Amino acid sequence: MKQLVETEPGPSTAVIKDAWYVCSWSGDLRHELIARRIADEPMALYRTPAGRPVAMADRCPHRHYLLSLGKLVGDAVQCGYHGFTFDPSGRCTFVPGQAEVPRAAGVRTYPIVERDGVVWVFPGDPALADPARIPATPWIAEWNAVTGYARIGARVVLLIDNLMDLSHETYLHPSQIGTPEVAETPIETSSDGNVVRVTRHMLGVECPPFYQAATGITGRIDRSQEIAFHAPAFWALSVRIAPAGSSGTGFRSKVLHGLTPETAHSSHDFWCIVRESDRDDRSKDEQIVARQTAVLMEDVFALEALEAQLQRTTERVPEISIGIDRGGLLARRALQERSPKLPA
Amino acid sequence: MKQLVETEPGPSTAVIKDAWYVCSWSGDLRHELIARRIADEPMALYRTPAGRPVAMADRCPHRHYLLSLGKLVGDAVQCGYHGFTFDPSGRCTFVPGQAEVPRAAGVRTYPIVERDGVVWVFPGDPALADPARIPATPWIAEWNAVTGYARIGARVVLLIDNLMDLSHETYLHPSQIGTPEVAETPIETSSDGNVVRVTRHMLGVECPPFYQAATGITGRIDRSQEIAFHAPAFWALSVRIAPAGSSGTGFRSKVLHGLTPETAHSSHDFWCIVRESDRDDRSKDEQIVARQTAVLMEDVFALEALEAQLQRTTERVPEISIGIDRGGLLARRALQERSPKLPA
Amino acid sequence: MKQLVETEPGPSTAVIKDAWYVCSWSGDLRHELIARRIADEPMALYRTPAGRPVAMADRCPHRHYLLSLGKLVGDAVQCGYHGFTFDPSGRCTFVPGQAEVPRAAGVRTYPIVERDGVVWVFPGDPALADPARIPATPWIAEWNAVTGYARIGARVVLLIDNLMDLSHETYLHPSQIGTPEVAETPIETSSDGNVVRVTRHMLGVECPPFYQAATGITGRIDRSQEIAFHAPAFWALSVRIAPAGSSGTGFRSKVLHGLTPETAHSSHDFWCIVRESDRDDRSKDEQIVARQTAVLMEDVFALEALEAQLQRTTERVPEISIGIDRGGLLARRALQERSPKLPA
Repeated sequence: MKQLVETEPGPSTAVIKDAWYVCSWSGDLRHELIARRIADEPMALYRTPAGRPVAMADRCPHRHYLLSLGKLVGDAVQCGYHGFTFDPSGRCTFVPGQAEVPRAAGVRTYPIVERDGVVWVFPGDPALADPARIPATPWIAEWNAVTGYARIGARVVLLIDNLMDLSHETYLHPSQIGTPEVAETPIETSSDGNVVRVTRHMLGVECPPFYQAATGITGRIDRSQEIAFHAPAFWALSVRIAPAGSSGTGFRSKVLHGLTPETAHSSHDFWCIVRESDRDDRSKDEQIVARQTAVLMEDVFALEALEAQLQRTTERVPEISIGIDRGGLLARRALQERSPKLPA
Repeated sequence: MKQLVETEPGPSTAVIKDAWYVCSWSGDLRHELIARRIADEPMALYRTPAGRPVAMADRCPHRHYLLSLGKLVGDAVQCGYHGFTFDPSGRCTFVPGQAEVPRAAGVRTYPIVERDGVVWVFPGDPALADPARIPATPWIAEWNAVTGYARIGARVVLLIDNLMDLSHETYLHPSQIGTPEVAETPIETSSDGNVVRVTRHMLGVECPPFYQAATGITGRIDRSQEIAFHAPAFWALSVRIAPAGSSGTGFRSKVLHGLTPETAHSSHDFWCIVRESDRDDRSKDEQIVARQTAVLMEDVFALEALEAQLQRTTERVPEISIGIDRGGLLARRALQERSPKLPA
Repeated sequence: MKQLVETEPGPSTAVIKDAWYVCSWSGDLRHELIARRIADEPMALYRTPAGRPVAMADRCPHRHYLLSLGKLVGDAVQCGYHGFTFDPSGRCTFVPGQAEVPRAAGVRTYPIVERDGVVWVFPGDPALADPARIPATPWIAEWNAVTGYARIGARVVLLIDNLMDLSHETYLHPSQIGTPEVAETPIETSSDGNVVRVTRHMLGVECPPFYQAATGITGRIDRSQEIAFHAPAFWALSVRIAPAGSSGTGFRSKVLHGLTPETAHSSHDFWCIVRESDRDDRSKDEQIVARQTAVLMEDVFALEALEAQLQRTTERVPEISIGIDRGGLLARRALQERSPKLPA
């Protein structure tokens, strides 16, 4: 892996704008204004009374006040400073003190798509916003899903590194999902440039507390992890847990993360856990949310410490990569191909 | 107004030093040291035992310790670190460990003038500090005055924009002073380069809560607003409220703001409300202060949000201006003529 | 002193790496990881089970996670993110998921020496780390010593300025150790480039509260202060207090400071007070620590205010120096000779 080390660029702070990003779970977007920065674009998000999601630039074209601090008037946004009003297409429909509305007074809106309970937004060039490029997520609507959110004060690639190399579970999350076998078991990786895959199959291993609680299994298990990273912003882990040696389908679930850059140094993590079994049983939801949140807070702590360390470090220090990093390095390459060029 | 948009420079962070600024209300300056940054000049302010106000650079020439952290010894300032002592003219009168005081050990003092209960300071070139250029404020001494102060974490021009366009009252201050007619009524503007005037006359309109409380009038009123902005740092609003159609002088008051830059991104707002009627009746003071503070806190919130937005925005985004902005744009021009040139 | 002013560079932010620095008192270093930045080098400090102190770069070579957030496994450090493990020499002994450990996976360790209860580290070029250059401190082991620590949000040269000119005791510490005579009494100074000395002998003067408590003497005293600053990082003040006119050795003590830059704008202050008399009497320790802490907090307040002032000041303002500054200016010169060149 030594050659990889020499040529890899380290954890980039580049922000990719030309991509579909999760900006909200459907249930969290209502007829009220939310301020959210997506890929360095400040947005005011809301849902119209008819239910349509809207993503509007969070800056009034008049004096640049934050539209998210204004109020909704029907399906329009009224600026809270001087009353400039914009319809869901961004067209200005009212200005104070005069009848004529200047044509230039419109505000940018962003392509937005809602599907399977996920709200996706495209902060970049709208000509490139092809909804066909949004990853398929049918199980969020079809299976039993719980969702959550965390803001992380770290560049998004650190979160991607984290998720592409699950051997960290053994060291960072030993009380919930890490067992020695995760770090010990070799992985297989592949990439077609758009989707990076990492798989790990563990046979006859210990069942960690997180999955004991979700499945009721306490003995030895066969456990597989199949990661599909849809560059640059969506990560899906398919998990299969079954009693060791059993040939059934076992317990199937997916852990999903919408990985959305906020700024060059901070990220949104929209996570979702879906399970195929007990599809209409909500009794385990609360415990799953609590355990997932506990795991995620360990990641947030680690990634924010790492981001702070990187920002304090002025010199360029190379990274050493080994076998477990193959997935993460493929993911970084997929990001790099999509990244704007930073000043040298 | 489109052409104005193209040529206006947006909300500048330039700090004008060659101007008289309010640095304190008379009643707030006592025989004790206050640290206050005025137009990016750190000053130690105090009043001598004889009552004379002093503005001294807040930096000991020895090792640059803050003189405002020292103590007053008679009418002199003794540095709290090594005891260097300065008289009100800034002359050094004592250094430790030796009899001879180096001639270079003096500290800068700033031209300062007290008039009508206002303390003005000139942070720039003292050769330009002509007291004749201080705006006349006789009613502060003659009428019934209440005063207050707020620090605002926003560049001073945002506060000036705010005050030059009172149509924002309708949207930002609807519970105290904004009524729909403020935004709807056309304004008249003029400028002679030193004073920018904006006037608005509203006939037979609703009386907002702020003026109901101050005047006791609850029915329809005639209401006039006459703004005089004395560039770059003093703003006076003359208000007349009278029962609709009445020909008397009605209730006359003035709202005054000393608009003093602290740094390129923060300001001091010294405000004063004077009313001609009930000149010796202090019974309404408390309520007027409370209501004015409520209004001002809405402005502080909005302007600090806007300043933060501007600082996060790296690209240059043009502003759209309309009729209500004529006064603000004339004020910005008057500032621009007085501003030091910023690096391009 | 005017010429000195013209040529002195002001309080530099240069960080000298090629020096021995105190990084801990022996009693504060245990078998647990401590994160500490020494001369801008982030270090993970710990003691092995056998008692040997270790200073390791606080950055895993794999993905740069902070090793101080990991855990100790015997005498080795295990990274808390992916389990990379390093022995006390910095050699990597384990990586996850593969048997072969890449040779490049080692981590830097720093020369470290423990002597007389002091742990010294050398953050710069190890070829220059000659233990013979560590100042001799036999009285820490032989006399009665109390130790303490403060982090100061100020560049280290401000702390050195402070300690080299004790006339500030009169103004900043009047309630504990300052009396008028400290500022009034002339000093003698000398420097051989490595050690800067400042001495002051006061005869028949008042005994300040700090020394009344330590010695029990309340009448007039002869008091001498002999400073030896071992550039760039160790300061020793030898104090002799005796009843005025007495010829005995009196009360002898030393105040010691390990002056360790943390970053260009912050410092560690490891202080120690040793007294020759009542060598085995710990009854006064608590009071000495309390009084020294009170004095030090006055210094911390002043130096952090000064650092903030310097950082806010963009223009270069010259300093005026007088006789009391001779020691401090010699110390600054000794630092300057050892400093890396800053960009002009």
